[in-house]
Amino acid sequence: MVKSKILSSAEERYCYAQDAANLRNEPNLPDAVVFVETIEEVQSIVKYANSHKIPIISRGAGTNMVGACTCTQGGIVLNFSRMNKIVDFNTENMTMKVQPGVILDDIKKLAESKGLFYPPDPSSYKVSTIGGSIAQSSGGAKTFKYGTTKDYILSLTVVLADGTLMKLGSGTVKDAVGYHLNQLIIGSEGTLAIVVEAELKLIPLPDCSILVSAYFDTIESAIMGVNDIIKNRIFPSTIDFMDKNAINSVEQFYPCGLQTDKSCMLLIEVDGFKKFAEFESGMIQDILKVSGASYINVAEDETAKENIWTARRSSFAATAKLGLDVVSDDVIVPRNALLRMINGCIDICNKFNLKLCLVGHIGDGNLHPQIALNLENDEEFKSYMSAKSEIYKLALSLGGTISSEHGVGIEKLSYIEQTVGAEVLEQMKRIKLLFDPNNILNPGKIFNL
Amino acid sequence: MVKSKILSSAEERYCYAQDAANLRNEPNLPDAVVFVETIEEVQSIVKYANSHKIPIISRGAGTNMVGACTCTQGGIVLNFSRMNKIVDFNTENMTMKVQPGVILDDIKKLAESKGLFYPPDPSSYKVSTIGGSIAQSSGGAKTFKYGTTKDYILSLTVVLADGTLMKLGSGTVKDAVGYHLNQLIIGSEGTLAIVVEAELKLIPLPDCSILVSAYFDTIESAIMGVNDIIKNRIFPSTIDFMDKNAINSVEQFYPCGLQTDKSCMLLIEVDGFKKFAEFESGMIQDILKVSGASYINVAEDETAKENIWTARRSSFAATAKLGLDVVSDDVIVPRNALLRMINGCIDICNKFNLKLCLVGHIGDGNLHPQIALNLENDEEFKSYMSAKSEIYKLALSLGGTISSEHGVGIEKLSYIEQTVGAEVLEQMKRIKLLFDPNNILNPGKIFNL
Repeated sequence: MVKSKILSSAEERYCYAQDAANLRNEPNLPDAVVFVETIEEVQSIVKYANSHKIPIISRGAGTNMVGACTCTQGGIVLNFSRMNKIVDFNTENMTMKVQPGVILDDIKKLAESKGLFYPPDPSSYKVSTIGGSIAQSSGGAKTFKYGTTKDYILSLTVVLADGTLMKLGSGTVKDAVGYHLNQLIIGSEGTLAIVVEAELKLIPLPDCSILVSAYFDTIESAIMGVNDIIKNRIFPSTIDFMDKNAINSVEQFYPCGLQTDKSCMLLIEVDGFKKFAEFESGMIQDILKVSGASYINVAEDETAKENIWTARRSSFAATAKLGLDVVSDDVIVPRNALLRMINGCIDICNKFNLKLCLVGHIGDGNLHPQIALNLENDEEFKSYMSAKSEIYKLALSLGGTISSEHGVGIEKLSYIEQTVGAEVLEQMKRIKLLFDPNNILNPGKIFNL
Repeated sequence: MVKSKILSSAEERYCYAQDAANLRNEPNLPDAVVFVETIEEVQSIVKYANSHKIPIISRGAGTNMVGACTCTQGGIVLNFSRMNKIVDFNTENMTMKVQPGVILDDIKKLAESKGLFYPPDPSSYKVSTIGGSIAQSSGGAKTFKYGTTKDYILSLTVVLADGTLMKLGSGTVKDAVGYHLNQLIIGSEGTLAIVVEAELKLIPLPDCSILVSAYFDTIESAIMGVNDIIKNRIFPSTIDFMDKNAINSVEQFYPCGLQTDKSCMLLIEVDGFKKFAEFESGMIQDILKVSGASYINVAEDETAKENIWTARRSSFAATAKLGLDVVSDDVIVPRNALLRMINGCIDICNKFNLKLCLVGHIGDGNLHPQIALNLENDEEFKSYMSAKSEIYKLALSLGGTISSEHGVGIEKLSYIEQTVGAEVLEQMKRIKLLFDPNNILNPGKIFNL
């Protein structure tokens, strides 16, 4: 291996000690960062690490929000940013074979250039990698109609902890030959195996999409609007949400003409052939007027649409400007519990005097409470930890769960037992040990052994 | 437990010794058949069986085609036909919680009564159960647009081999908390755990669907037609196929006006609001004319549509009338290899002088070679086994696999190693032993330990 691929100075290692999770404590440094370029390199490093019981932390763009790429125990960071080739793109089969370091936006753009579509779109898709998407079981705004990463993975080529290379899944769109081991790897956050290649399923690209923004004076009427759309058998690709604080913080720091006097806003996108999308967009406007929307806007062109989406995606950055730090959480509840969950988040943050901007993919029941605070301030940190714990407890009591698309990492590790139960957790640990008896693959993530 | 729930006479046990797989050998009888009614009963029977190392074979309607419900080693058949309650149906959340013995058609009808949709539709859906669908990872005609069973399972409540009850998955539409153990259970054919409850994801019901039947003089032009539809960004719910023999056998035994002089037929369904479906159906007709369709028919009403689908679903029964026995297989290849796979199946069956009717969900690259023969005839049986082996070899050589929606059972068990490779097979066996150390759960299915 040539030396240029290895970073070993403290400064360099520091750069790869953290990810997009906003953690309070100084990170542990990895012992080395290796920019792998081939499957064989991955195999040989993993074999070596396994025989010396050295942790291996796989890393793409490091955009995850839960500390899944942090180095709790030192070890070797395998940086996949150079394994970023699109290995194969077969338009007739509607499949793409990619290395783990390929950026989602590159996958989307290449697919779209041939009239095909890779739907998963986490907010970070312009910089995040497919490897990270697979590790964290990413979703995005289009989950409501199109599902998540797990619905678009046909096969995974993985390196096990002992260096063995395996292809899991056949690459066909259906596969009923034995256990779905590829599905077991998706969302396992690099703790079971290291993905070195993935075959993706693509679908026909919708001809166009139309974005309807609707503002409401109450959250109740917004939720009623969502239900009414579905009752009318419309299947939007996206049903997203911003609360008043989210709207106002965006408008304060990235002004783009959002209506700041409203209680909340729905962003509803429909797609398909133009005249169908127009028809559905018309229906949606009619329905939402009845549900109580007080202002409705239809993005008249691609620029206007992108403007609104940029606003929605800027919400995290805007919230960040309200404090020294910002944390974005991820909870999900059945949709009929959304109102209680939204009000609960607001009440809890009020109680602890925390600045909350609430956004989410509410068609899925998924909320991202974004909290601005100063993590170094002991008092605020304590309040935040209490609020977080209460938010999770509420989500669980409403039949929801504590992570829908961010994963567990180290951020939610201490809540996993109360979430899945002791017995399921034990079964997960047994599977972990079966795959990785020396606990070298991303140790200390999801759970501690 | 009351005695009426247990069948123990040889005649009664014989009724539950087989499933829809057409096997040559007389089946082994189970030692008992128990009609379970509660989760607690399942737990206590499984606990008992585990401590005495007695095989447990879970069974719904027994419609699977691979012998997954057969009793290779005797044991207790757990018959779930009385656990057929719909436990909860929440229209706002678009979820349904069901016991494993609920028939798919009941799920579909109840969902549809409230404008919701459960898409997976194996040909047997009018009698087959959700438990069997989960066990075999069922697909159906609508997979092309809507995916398979695995895409509609939110949570599974399962009984493990030691009697432990676990809920896997949260019941929300996204879940990124730890390993996707529910996905591991789907398609595991009752060998890892016993599903006692499932929470299903539903989607908005399309307003209507339109079925276009198109006949071609060559298979090449039919396949070209499929590609042309997708290139035009149309996303049909179904792209199905019948070859000349399938058309002719159906028309011989269940006459319904199919065009018997053509080489093959596509059944293409689009769905959505009526005027969109009509528009797309119009586009499809225009496209297929250019691709070389020599006759196109649009089912003008629900009756006409159901007539065509009944014809397609009757293909298995029609093939059965061409011989004493019939076997329906299930292979899948990337769509760009379909022509080679179709011609290969025809050539192989011709070579071995076997009567083949070929149908399939060719949008997915999925073919169901249906072969009529006399299984008791040694010569024919030998020919069939050779043909089957050649068909699988061809599917694998084309980048496909040997089962897409039927499973492995005992029928394909001897081919699994060449399909997934020795190392993946070993990993599956290790997982099996982790879940079921005494090998009591449906032993001898998928693989032998």
